[in-house]
Amino acid sequence: MSSDRLPSRSENFAEWYNQIVLRAELADYAPVRGCMVVRPYGWALWENIQKALDRRFKETGHVNAAFPLFIPKSFLEKEKAHVEGFSPELAVVTIGGGEELEEPLVVRPTSETIIGHMYSKWIKSHRDLPVLINMWNNVVRWELRTKLFLRTTEFYWQEGHTAHATHEEAEAETLQMLDIYADFAENEAAVPVIQGLKSEREKFAGALRSYTIEAMMGDLRALQSGTSHNLGDNFSRAFNIRYSDQNNELQYCWTTSWGLSTRFIGTIIMVHGDDQGLILPPRLAPYQLVIVPIFRNEEQKTVVFEAVKRIEAQLSEFRVKVDWREDVTPGFKFNDWEMRGVPLRIELGPRDVESQQVVLVRRDISGSEGKFQVSQDGLASVVEKMLIDIQNHLFKRAVRFREENTHRVETYEDFKETLEHKGGFIRVHWAGTSEDEDLIKEETRATIRCFPLDPPEGHGCCFYTGEETDRIAIFARAY
Amino acid sequence: MSSDRLPSRSENFAEWYNQIVLRAELADYAPVRGCMVVRPYGWALWENIQKALDRRFKETGHVNAAFPLFIPKSFLEKEKAHVEGFSPELAVVTIGGGEELEEPLVVRPTSETIIGHMYSKWIKSHRDLPVLINMWNNVVRWELRTKLFLRTTEFYWQEGHTAHATHEEAEAETLQMLDIYADFAENEAAVPVIQGLKSEREKFAGALRSYTIEAMMGDLRALQSGTSHNLGDNFSRAFNIRYSDQNNELQYCWTTSWGLSTRFIGTIIMVHGDDQGLILPPRLAPYQLVIVPIFRNEEQKTVVFEAVKRIEAQLSEFRVKVDWREDVTPGFKFNDWEMRGVPLRIELGPRDVESQQVVLVRRDISGSEGKFQVSQDGLASVVEKMLIDIQNHLFKRAVRFREENTHRVETYEDFKETLEHKGGFIRVHWAGTSEDEDLIKEETRATIRCFPLDPPEGHGCCFYTGEETDRIAIFARAY
Repeated sequence: MSSDRLPSRSENFAEWYNQIVLRAELADYAPVRGCMVVRPYGWALWENIQKALDRRFKETGHVNAAFPLFIPKSFLEKEKAHVEGFSPELAVVTIGGGEELEEPLVVRPTSETIIGHMYSKWIKSHRDLPVLINMWNNVVRWELRTKLFLRTTEFYWQEGHTAHATHEEAEAETLQMLDIYADFAENEAAVPVIQGLKSEREKFAGALRSYTIEAMMGDLRALQSGTSHNLGDNFSRAFNIRYSDQNNELQYCWTTSWGLSTRFIGTIIMVHGDDQGLILPPRLAPYQLVIVPIFRNEEQKTVVFEAVKRIEAQLSEFRVKVDWREDVTPGFKFNDWEMRGVPLRIELGPRDVESQQVVLVRRDISGSEGKFQVSQDGLASVVEKMLIDIQNHLFKRAVRFREENTHRVETYEDFKETLEHKGGFIRVHWAGTSEDEDLIKEETRATIRCFPLDPPEGHGCCFYTGEETDRIAIFARAY
Repeated sequence: MSSDRLPSRSENFAEWYNQIVLRAELADYAPVRGCMVVRPYGWALWENIQKALDRRFKETGHVNAAFPLFIPKSFLEKEKAHVEGFSPELAVVTIGGGEELEEPLVVRPTSETIIGHMYSKWIKSHRDLPVLINMWNNVVRWELRTKLFLRTTEFYWQEGHTAHATHEEAEAETLQMLDIYADFAENEAAVPVIQGLKSEREKFAGALRSYTIEAMMGDLRALQSGTSHNLGDNFSRAFNIRYSDQNNELQYCWTTSWGLSTRFIGTIIMVHGDDQGLILPPRLAPYQLVIVPIFRNEEQKTVVFEAVKRIEAQLSEFRVKVDWREDVTPGFKFNDWEMRGVPLRIELGPRDVESQQVVLVRRDISGSEGKFQVSQDGLASVVEKMLIDIQNHLFKRAVRFREENTHRVETYEDFKETLEHKGGFIRVHWAGTSEDEDLIKEETRATIRCFPLDPPEGHGCCFYTGEETDRIAIFARAY
């Protein structure tokens, strides 16, 4: 399969994406409609994402737990907006142990309801607050049009659910978790994101306010890469989550929820990848470095293998893969690991052994500029520095790309033309209504990705209604 | 709740168990029949179990992946013994996205079938073998009589699935994983286990041979605490998992599967716990150490809190909890953390601050023998040594308990009497048939836990049939 050419991004971005996911063995189609199998290479990437996030969650006082997969159907119906949002997407268990169930069980599409039920049982006093729980799990949403990682019937994520004594605390938590997502995206995945508030049309079903991190993909479309919701007292009223305050009076809690999913793997692919395949940020890459031994005969092989083992030991602080295969050529291996996005490659042949050097090849810079002859002496510190350089370069390149493809427009005509001929993010003053947003979406397929949390820019005229406003919106076509 | 007395183990072991699980906040009943919520303290214990196992899996070349939750019903029917074993326990999704499904989807009770399907797609050549994949996930088996951690409709586990070129390799893998489970149980959980082969009656539905680690609980019953299955070519024939060998001929693969679940938390509770509550092995305990500050007035509080902070920093290499609560007494805290099984407690009052000492209290030894006055100087190394001592003591105590409660019998009369009056494990020579095993089970509720893999003991007469044999069996009543 790897011998066929990968479609280029410009000729067919969607097919380029699918082919990378399959060829790099990140995921595969499951025999169940809309489901995926996350293969070991993809799961190792997810495990690194999990570690980076979990550490941040625990540093901010969160703990993990596990709530059931099945939710009684009646639970979903307790929060009106929530059930409306999720009803069309449910998978329902109607048979258990060979018998028809009295009450059908929904396979969780998200867990606000069942967690709300448990919190109402656990929380009694202000001394029990805040409750800061996260869960790593699988959820199911019946999707009609699916795409590996981006939209599948079953997917993997974490969902955090917290309960607080006041609305202010809940809002602070919501924003703190948004910040953690942004910090993770930028400093671990080298993905620049815009933090912002979702419009009423795009917010989570049941939320008071939803926040998002939005990233720009290589085809200029936006991808919502993580969300954090202030649920107000909607779920605490629906599930009677109350605490007695210092004066012994019963008060409703204020709750939040926040999630980041395997979808983020799609973000990484589409932000960094190029026509040769995947490019993984060093901090998350399952292998940070691949070593390819080069030899022509048994004598050379012995000498080279010995040197490779020594160098592998020298680099034990990194995640290193040695490609020992003998049934494929070095050239095949170079292409293969480039396609799989390993950030750094070491080539080692008999001449390198003799001169006590190695050839280092950066995945993020093609041609001779990305190729270095380096002494074996002190190799670990050179590798360390180079991995940091790659991480920084990927981030800066993505920032530049986003900036180059973010446009400002003053009128709706301008908006449509920019969207049609340039694409990307369109930054505007916005004073429209939800209905205006619907009309724009219908006509252009662009939606409000968010109202960014950046410092205010001052007043201006709404590109659509002409009204004066200080609200900024970012529009884009999105995944 | 904690103020009520915990039932003692001798008066009601089952209720003692349930109360510990609930009071220590390890788990709670879910609003869905037979399901549980694993609370943060229980999940932290599970995370430590996961880390200890996952490290061992990876050191032996295994990688993690994720296969779908849903399995087409027809898949299960491809392996005859498998479908017979699991059919009565299935949860079935019949509705997706508001519509009746053409083919119902089973919520995985275990994943041999869907993984078999994927392996048949991925494995082509002998160069693709072995495939060594593990998955951490949730599975569902519709259980009628449930008990927290021990038997719930949904539970959490890892399931490893490997494919090999030869039967010998598959058998070696099966035994390697059994060994890893035993090593984990004994060296991390301080739980002595007997490694053995399951009888035909007790083996996994679809396996050629099942191996088990069996542990003795505090009420003398056995608990199967992890299993490793040699699946022969049963699943590779059912799912057509084949590879072309060196001569380019198609051969069936030989597969294995092995799993250890949240049930193991039940093992830990029932092996180590006492009438005061849980006792956690230091290597797995979410908190290895709790610090309880003691003071009577604000002045003392200031002094003590300052010292506690210094000591907490001194012990940063351990998992430490400081109980800062001010609305409960130190005595309440002592009982509370004893009940929650924290291996070591530090008490620190104004006099200790003055004398530069702390009081260390071991959870595993009651009374004055478990209490030590220790200098704050060099405390970390004392704590380290003491945690190792506790770990070793728990293991030795459990070994001694099992030995004291393992009996040998020569006749069936003796067997029944021993079972009735003593309980525990009964070690016998065994030459009976599966039908004999059924009869014994019916009459005594005891089953063959395993044929232990110990070195041979020589010939003897079967206690049931009188035939001479060198096969040893361990019978017990089991969970």
